[in-house]
Amino acid sequence: MLGIDDGRFVSKTQGTVDIVGVVYRGGYWFEGLMRSKVSIDGLDAIEKIASMIKNSPFYGEIRIVFLDGLSFGGFNIVDISELFSMLDLPVISIVREKPDLEKIKNALQNLPDFLERWKSIENAGELIKVNTRKNDNPIYIQIAGILLDDAKKIIKKMSTHSNIPEALRVAHIIASGLTCQ
Amino acid sequence: MLGIDDGRFVSKTQGTVDIVGVVYRGGYWFEGLMRSKVSIDGLDAIEKIASMIKNSPFYGEIRIVFLDGLSFGGFNIVDISELFSMLDLPVISIVREKPDLEKIKNALQNLPDFLERWKSIENAGELIKVNTRKNDNPIYIQIAGILLDDAKKIIKKMSTHSNIPEALRVAHIIASGLTCQ
Repeated sequence: MLGIDDGRFVSKTQGTVDIVGVVYRGGYWFEGLMRSKVSIDGLDAIEKIASMIKNSPFYGEIRIVFLDGLSFGGFNIVDISELFSMLDLPVISIVREKPDLEKIKNALQNLPDFLERWKSIENAGELIKVNTRKNDNPIYIQIAGILLDDAKKIIKKMSTHSNIPEALRVAHIIASGLTCQ
Repeated sequence: MLGIDDGRFVSKTQGTVDIVGVVYRGGYWFEGLMRSKVSIDGLDAIEKIASMIKNSPFYGEIRIVFLDGLSFGGFNIVDISELFSMLDLPVISIVREKPDLEKIKNALQNLPDFLERWKSIENAGELIKVNTRKNDNPIYIQIAGILLDDAKKIIKKMSTHSNIPEALRVAHIIASGLTCQ
């Protein structure tokens, strides 16, 4: 599995933010790392993520892609259905808190290309609540290129140390550690 | 455990190279990341590594430090006995191939502060061959602040996916991935 997250950045700045992809072989074996940059509040996240994956030595081995939400570097939003088509790999977006779509819609209206960004969010489909681990908080997923039952099974199996897939948990740690200095 | 490795750099250049420390909770659980820079062929690796660890939120939890060899950023050599004293944590240097000490000594003579660098290598003591996993290549270790029998036991237990401790294997992947672009 591949888990992708972005680093931190100072709000309302311009420029780029690091994104990190972590490859796990099963739920316990760190296999590899990939890295790219996306522009803050830009529109290039989907292209950058797709080319990062396609140019990595792991492309042929990856069976599923987990994203930390739909947005990278602020409001640089990924259309997961389109990413699925570009990669021919199932894509699952995962968030720990249910997002407030009205609030996001309002914020997007302050940015250029509002319709394109909003369409990417609408295309991601329903937010589905999943309980990955007993006695842990539920997560919310959006899926592309995979059946819901399969998605749930894979997520549960891959969430070995927290309530999210291990590659995504580790991508978050690395992306945060890279960019906070 | 903590595993520390350095990134790649172009030979015979000046400047700094990234070093990455990866914290594992046991042999399967990626817990955290720390990062610093050391000067190529400088003398600051021990200070930079010690302060990276002491300033990290994991310092109180780490029980053992694994280094990828004694040298970081070329010939910036760490005295593991001194690092043990600075951290009050056992330090184990691990290499996959037995180093040619005569060749290293000759190379060091071309650098300033030869005696200081060579003393750090001599202080690291004997290179001890350890077979961490059946049917895998042996590794060579140097230890400070820990008994050899304990070192061997811990290394074997922590080498879950290769013949070196997992945190060191993953630190190598991350450090290489950060700096090759």
